[in-house]
Amino acid sequence: MDAVQVLNGRSVAILGAGLVGAGWAIAFARAGVSVRIFDADSSTAEGVLPFVAKQLEVLQAQKLIKEAVNSVLSRMTVVPTAASALEGAAYVQESVLERVDVKRRLMVEIGDAAAPDVVVGSSSSGIPASAFALGLSITPRVLIVHPVNPPYLIPLVELVPTAHTSLEAMELASSLMQAIGQSVIHVRREVEGFVLNRLQAALLREAWSLVRDGVATCEDVDKTVRDGLGLRWSFMGPFETIDLNAPGGVADYARRLGALYLSIANSRKEEGAWDSEWISLVEEQRRRHLPLAELASRRAWRDARLMKMAVLRLTSDDQR
Amino acid sequence: MDAVQVLNGRSVAILGAGLVGAGWAIAFARAGVSVRIFDADSSTAEGVLPFVAKQLEVLQAQKLIKEAVNSVLSRMTVVPTAASALEGAAYVQESVLERVDVKRRLMVEIGDAAAPDVVVGSSSSGIPASAFALGLSITPRVLIVHPVNPPYLIPLVELVPTAHTSLEAMELASSLMQAIGQSVIHVRREVEGFVLNRLQAALLREAWSLVRDGVATCEDVDKTVRDGLGLRWSFMGPFETIDLNAPGGVADYARRLGALYLSIANSRKEEGAWDSEWISLVEEQRRRHLPLAELASRRAWRDARLMKMAVLRLTSDDQR
Repeated sequence: MDAVQVLNGRSVAILGAGLVGAGWAIAFARAGVSVRIFDADSSTAEGVLPFVAKQLEVLQAQKLIKEAVNSVLSRMTVVPTAASALEGAAYVQESVLERVDVKRRLMVEIGDAAAPDVVVGSSSSGIPASAFALGLSITPRVLIVHPVNPPYLIPLVELVPTAHTSLEAMELASSLMQAIGQSVIHVRREVEGFVLNRLQAALLREAWSLVRDGVATCEDVDKTVRDGLGLRWSFMGPFETIDLNAPGGVADYARRLGALYLSIANSRKEEGAWDSEWISLVEEQRRRHLPLAELASRRAWRDARLMKMAVLRLTSDDQR
Repeated sequence: MDAVQVLNGRSVAILGAGLVGAGWAIAFARAGVSVRIFDADSSTAEGVLPFVAKQLEVLQAQKLIKEAVNSVLSRMTVVPTAASALEGAAYVQESVLERVDVKRRLMVEIGDAAAPDVVVGSSSSGIPASAFALGLSITPRVLIVHPVNPPYLIPLVELVPTAHTSLEAMELASSLMQAIGQSVIHVRREVEGFVLNRLQAALLREAWSLVRDGVATCEDVDKTVRDGLGLRWSFMGPFETIDLNAPGGVADYARRLGALYLSIANSRKEEGAWDSEWISLVEEQRRRHLPLAELASRRAWRDARLMKMAVLRLTSDDQR
């Protein structure tokens, strides 16, 4: 089923149109879906279509969209109220401020104005839906749909239900995400950081400690990942990597290397906060490598590289 | 300087010609260096050139070597003794069994037979050089030069000196590795797992725990990395990733998210061993996803994907 079929021809409401919301608008509209966009801040609302148009042009230059830019843009409408965005919507993607009170107020508003079967995905990267979506008529139809930025280049989305999210809502969100080309995982409990940030946190904590302890520089840690670990991890996950790295597969690998990994992991107990001294050490190394004034141009370089990765994936064998 | 110049026209001795040693032979010979290969096991020694020839053909098909396969092969000689491999060698890459007594015996042998200025890089992935290379005339010229497999596709090498390794030896190894196209990091102390496996361990421990706790399946963890975190990590490291992910760079990022990462990291204290029950849980999920009989063909797929990554890197802007 394509995305339009999953939605029964109805639209998607984008609430909050900053960087995250605008990225979502591209991901949906590129897949043929009509999106109605609202942001309470009028200058953000005015900026969204010009920003989106620019991104679409770059995507087209890389052949990552097949239609004319204007044809994708024609499926986006910026509207003056949340209620207007919700008209005819089968699905809402909310990307408003990461604050419980703001998200809670929005849930009440959606419950009042939207169709009774609407499903709401929250882009929250940290706050679980149970913190702002319980005790409402809409409760069974709310879940976290956490993207990586930008979602039109990095496909992963984490679906995190509350204990009260219905199976139907999960299935609609999952089908819709797959139909627009995202890679969906199902986080089965509301753990802090969900899955992606927990994995990132584990690696980052070790990385910061290695720099503090003088074992390696920031740049050498970065090389270790980008010229070593990250090459395989960009098309296989960590489990598949180790499964292929021992003659008898993952169990064989675990028996050979489990003790080493346990010993390494347990050598990092009771870590303290990244205090100002520690942050200065890391910052000083990074700024020597990349001056603050070059952050913006480096972000453009990063996005261009992400597009090359997206093209590579399109022209490679399917993952499995 | 090219590799031949770094070596003053002298050769490289490859001691131990299993998967790791054979990979090194390709990495050196591809760069124009003459390599003399020895393995104490005669069937391993006989198998190395046919194996290498096959790999070179695949590399050539992907345009990752520019010469004829036979021209690269002509720089490799399999010899019947370690002493013969060491003749004329300016550098030794040892990849023998990962056992202290075996490596110690080899160091003594190299000290007796090699030129007095030879530098010895050990492929050891776990044993630090101070465990097998101290108290010898050769001690100042031994260090760990730890590759990722295969080194001709994954450029990272970790250089780990002992407290007695000379600066000259470090510099020769570093120059040589860069000249053959590797990406070199300098691990400043002999920590367990060096840098690469410490970073991998941190992420793997969290991954295994998420599966045990029923938060995510192995496959969903793998998706999170390959369709999310790993895309950026394949061309930027973790520090550059977060440096670009906050308006004010890494310090700004650390102030915003440090508390979350600390909280996540400290929720994984006192982890136990991967016992047989835990291993079975992971193995069962992996085997359902990829039967044991398909491991070999999946490894071939992995190597083909690594080659595509290598091609992508060659045709992209330089890293910095």
